[in-house]
Amino acid sequence: MGEKDSGAGHLHRLVLFSDAVFAIAITLLAIEIHPPEHWRGAADLFAQMGHKLTAYAVSFAVIGVCWFSHRRVFARLVRANGGLDIFNFVVLGLIALLPLSTEMLWEKPDGEAVLVYVGHVALIGLAMGLVWAYAAFVGKLTEPMPVGEAIFVLLRVALLPGLMCGLTIFSLVKPWGWVLLAALVLVMNLIGRRLSAAPKAA
Amino acid sequence: MGEKDSGAGHLHRLVLFSDAVFAIAITLLAIEIHPPEHWRGAADLFAQMGHKLTAYAVSFAVIGVCWFSHRRVFARLVRANGGLDIFNFVVLGLIALLPLSTEMLWEKPDGEAVLVYVGHVALIGLAMGLVWAYAAFVGKLTEPMPVGEAIFVLLRVALLPGLMCGLTIFSLVKPWGWVLLAALVLVMNLIGRRLSAAPKAA
Amino acid sequence: MGEKDSGAGHLHRLVLFSDAVFAIAITLLAIEIHPPEHWRGAADLFAQMGHKLTAYAVSFAVIGVCWFSHRRVFARLVRANGGLDIFNFVVLGLIALLPLSTEMLWEKPDGEAVLVYVGHVALIGLAMGLVWAYAAFVGKLTEPMPVGEAIFVLLRVALLPGLMCGLTIFSLVKPWGWVLLAALVLVMNLIGRRLSAAPKAA
Amino acid sequence: MGEKDSGAGHLHRLVLFSDAVFAIAITLLAIEIHPPEHWRGAADLFAQMGHKLTAYAVSFAVIGVCWFSHRRVFARLVRANGGLDIFNFVVLGLIALLPLSTEMLWEKPDGEAVLVYVGHVALIGLAMGLVWAYAAFVGKLTEPMPVGEAIFVLLRVALLPGLMCGLTIFSLVKPWGWVLLAALVLVMNLIGRRLSAAPKAA
Repeated sequence: MGEKDSGAGHLHRLVLFSDAVFAIAITLLAIEIHPPEHWRGAADLFAQMGHKLTAYAVSFAVIGVCWFSHRRVFARLVRANGGLDIFNFVVLGLIALLPLSTEMLWEKPDGEAVLVYVGHVALIGLAMGLVWAYAAFVGKLTEPMPVGEAIFVLLRVALLPGLMCGLTIFSLVKPWGWVLLAALVLVMNLIGRRLSAAPKAA
Repeated sequence: MGEKDSGAGHLHRLVLFSDAVFAIAITLLAIEIHPPEHWRGAADLFAQMGHKLTAYAVSFAVIGVCWFSHRRVFARLVRANGGLDIFNFVVLGLIALLPLSTEMLWEKPDGEAVLVYVGHVALIGLAMGLVWAYAAFVGKLTEPMPVGEAIFVLLRVALLPGLMCGLTIFSLVKPWGWVLLAALVLVMNLIGRRLSAAPKAA
Repeated sequence: MGEKDSGAGHLHRLVLFSDAVFAIAITLLAIEIHPPEHWRGAADLFAQMGHKLTAYAVSFAVIGVCWFSHRRVFARLVRANGGLDIFNFVVLGLIALLPLSTEMLWEKPDGEAVLVYVGHVALIGLAMGLVWAYAAFVGKLTEPMPVGEAIFVLLRVALLPGLMCGLTIFSLVKPWGWVLLAALVLVMNLIGRRLSAAPKAA
Repeated sequence: MGEKDSGAGHLHRLVLFSDAVFAIAITLLAIEIHPPEHWRGAADLFAQMGHKLTAYAVSFAVIGVCWFSHRRVFARLVRANGGLDIFNFVVLGLIALLPLSTEMLWEKPDGEAVLVYVGHVALIGLAMGLVWAYAAFVGKLTEPMPVGEAIFVLLRVALLPGLMCGLTIFSLVKPWGWVLLAALVLVMNLIGRRLSAAPKAA
């Protein structure tokens, strides 16, 4: 019991630490954006800064989605251990690099940069999937849950960031990408609800 | 009940995360201010840095007012959900851009920059109003409260930042603006007290 | 009672927010320090960076002393209110400017810069004194305590940062300043112990 | 008892403050990395940024190990005092300088820079050892524990960061260094388990 309590304190500190890294990364996204030297009127200002603000908004949304995923994963854990620390550090290390990829995106907004950027985000998702896989299947750090649900969480956590980011950027070019994006979120939500409803009925 | 508890843990983590973003944004305000290369005596130093320090003080006060509003809104919530996350992220995204607008303000301290700046702050207020409107009327995330009070909170949260910021900057030019500002705060406080006193008497 | 509880939650959030600002300011102290372009061996490296590292160490100690004071003040409070928010924001606003003063100190390490720097630190102390004076004498936010102790805390909180900072810098030039510094800390500690011992005996 | 409680609140605030400094330092590691001006394809991008990303990964791992050590030390404490504040501030001051050493490492990746860098990390370990030595032997801030275990913790905390960092960098040049590193972690873990198992059996 003392072991479990200390694992819970460990979990609490790990969550606070991760939150701080997320918060700093999200706030640093804006730090390399500077106002243009000359501008006349708000319209001109936004015309000159549009691509930077778009990249900022996309990355802000990306970190938001990752934070959301991270919160949902950790809400299911009951304790932490050293292995979780390590996998979580990999996630945080990739999150802290996102301001760099964002800067790249607005300095060279072509297909190659977008590819590297989406690849970076997809990697964050995979790393988060690793955290969950370790916690659920190796470290046994979660409450007892059906294997099917654990696998669904794994897929959602691992694939959603890359898919959502890719679709969002795709939608900025082809507006009907938003329909795909909405459908993706909807389907994920429906499956998630059905899976979490089932054990309650049992 | 389990659902509500998890909503409360969610709320706690959301508040801590928001606090971290506020704290980082407020501290980053100062990061682009550098001392002048040559100066003789404190008077000369302040003469050269005056406009930057003024912009810093205004933005610090603005983030202070927003944090104050945010704290008051979230003190009335009893749980959080995914929708609240999203609206709160919009607020944080605007807060994190404030150092950028502040930099713009001291580099080009004319009417246009002031307009963009006050517009930015007003937008933060409106986004915070959205958070409250969602929490109180859609997500039912608050304790039970009279509709009249909920609407008053909405107006105060949504309009106060823009009004206070506009009046503060106006007061730097026309000193009698401070009287308007004091009157605004006083009236808001009086209405707030009357509204929160009423249900207790009932 | 509900009022008091909400005041305690408010206090908790205010402390966390302040801690975040302190932590960010203290970490940003180092951000403008860059390694020299050319250096041969560790001795040369330290010779070239010595004045920056000294300024860093002094400012780190200054923020440390302020955090220490802040923690001691807030450990005596039992609730918070809007007035405390405002005075505390003044303290945080001055803390967040310390990286700027530090940069000034290493770019122009002469008497004038030292004077401005020590003045800045003394101002932080006075602002912290204002926080305590408001909390203890106006807002009645503390546990009941003898007036003599409250006044001693006020003097210690308001004067210590400026005195310690001035003496530390003085000691870098005249080594016997360290004796004065040690005596100051010792005397303050003795008075503090006597004052806090007295009511326990009563 | 009131004394102990206040020491526990103090400890909690100290841990949160330290976590914030760790989180900021770890996130700032990436802030001086900028994308190259010209690049074609992901392979060229990584070729140009490889040395910076390697230095980033090493420093991220170093701060990770330090955070891990810090968490383990503080999980054994039951209260804090002013002395702990001071020693902990020395650790944090060295942690906050790590982005500077990392920058040095990628700007001048030769033997001298590596030596200064590993020396810096070893110093962090020694400072953390000082924190533990003070807490366990002078301030009596821990739960009661056998002297042998306290000394083992001291050695592990004080020497591990420097050893692991040195071996990691060594392994980037000579791949068989990884074997030494794995052996070091394994042996430390085995001794730690035996020591913490013993008192439970008693």
